Amino acid sequence: MSNENNAKRLSMIVTKGTLDWAYPPFILATTAAAMGLEVTMFFTFYGLTLLKKKLDLSVSALGNPAMKMPMMGMHIGMPNLMSVIPGVGAAATTMMENLIKKKGIASIEELREAAIESEVKMIACQMTMDLFEYKIEDMIEGPVVGGAATYIETATQSEINLFI
Amino acid sequence: MSNENNAKRLSMIVTKGTLDWAYPPFILATTAAAMGLEVTMFFTFYGLTLLKKKLDLSVSALGNPAMKMPMMGMHIGMPNLMSVIPGVGAAATTMMENLIKKKGIASIEELREAAIESEVKMIACQMTMDLFEYKIEDMIEGPVVGGAATYIETATQSEINLFI
Amino acid sequence: MSNENNAKRLSMIVTKGTLDWAYPPFILATTAAAMGLEVTMFFTFYGLTLLKKKLDLSVSALGNPAMKMPMMGMHIGMPNLMSVIPGVGAAATTMMENLIKKKGIASIEELREAAIESEVKMIACQMTMDLFEYKIEDMIEGPVVGGAATYIETATQSEINLFI
Repeated sequence: MSNENNAKRLSMIVTKGTLDWAYPPFILATTAAAMGLEVTMFFTFYGLTLLKKKLDLSVSALGNPAMKMPMMGMHIGMPNLMSVIPGVGAAATTMMENLIKKKGIASIEELREAAIESEVKMIACQMTMDLFEYKIEDMIEGPVVGGAATYIETATQSEINLFI
Repeated sequence: MSNENNAKRLSMIVTKGTLDWAYPPFILATTAAAMGLEVTMFFTFYGLTLLKKKLDLSVSALGNPAMKMPMMGMHIGMPNLMSVIPGVGAAATTMMENLIKKKGIASIEELREAAIESEVKMIACQMTMDLFEYKIEDMIEGPVVGGAATYIETATQSEINLFI
Repeated sequence: MSNENNAKRLSMIVTKGTLDWAYPPFILATTAAAMGLEVTMFFTFYGLTLLKKKLDLSVSALGNPAMKMPMMGMHIGMPNLMSVIPGVGAAATTMMENLIKKKGIASIEELREAAIESEVKMIACQMTMDLFEYKIEDMIEGPVVGGAATYIETATQSEINLFI
């Protein structure tokens, strides 16, 4: 945190690990880094899984009636009854993956790689690693392990703080 | 962002599009604007639907065991099994709509209108519009279209930043 | 908000009331208070229930495919179909409670007590109390009742603002 160049700083707590909610933190991180900000991401709770070497992200329309896919010129939601049928969650994931690819949007893996290349600082939450029994060797290289105090220290020095 | 009057600035990323989660951003926006703050709302992901001319918001108790409605002096939650039955999601929406009306709380449409009248600046996320194939003509008048860089620019100039 | 000692200030909007999402605000609050920050928590929407004298928190894997419990050296998620079966939500709650206890992590009740002892300021949202018909006598002692304007006032004076 030397910040010799007076750059503004963005610090994010990343708590969600689904395909859709993985996008906001990585898009914000890469955009901010490209604009010259110093960026720190603190991965905790379900967000910690975004640091795994092998990502296996999915979405679920369950409990989110606002998730509607564009189909045949309309926006179609999924009734909760359908969403619990085995395979329908996987179908929603495939639909969203296809939509993302068709629209030329980068994958989470690509955005994560770009974030690391842009020197975005990543911190893996120690307590979450203990709680959910994740090992550092399952994670990509780059992140350091830290706790809530590490996050608070960073946040007090950041102009933009977001809990995602 | 001239900010001649030295007003404090609040900037929010609005990512959720259900009836319940639509309230926090609009209540904060109208309250802050009434207190003299300059407010910017960046609508992205499921939150983008809150800019549609015709709102059709609903709630789901699915996956949110903390959602409990006051009934007959008690607080009743809904077992997940019930919530997947067709019509029960709609019933939860109706119950919450009735509760909101009975308590004299403004509708999202009314709060949105008040926000626009208070000169709250609204930005519709370009990437989300492309991804979910929403058209500017389906949106209310007022919002401009912008990307993550527009948001970051605003955020660096805001005293309060929230990801909702 | 005298802040004679030039302490940095952390202000959080706490909106979720499940067992898992109750942790981030209380861990951040107690950690920040221990580091000398002045902390304010504004409890609103489903988060208001975290102020109840008798906590009865649960989790649901529904709609959160990223929730995976460590079992027999693997990480097991729960198919949505299983999660709607009566009792399975309760089982997920019990599993997470056991995991938390086994790992020696403090309970929400303990963290809440520690937060109060650390002079974390707690505000219960007036509108939510009216909407969901919660009474101040059902709440723990300590929190004051306030509205969105009280929150905004606090937020304008805080270096770190988070919406959780």
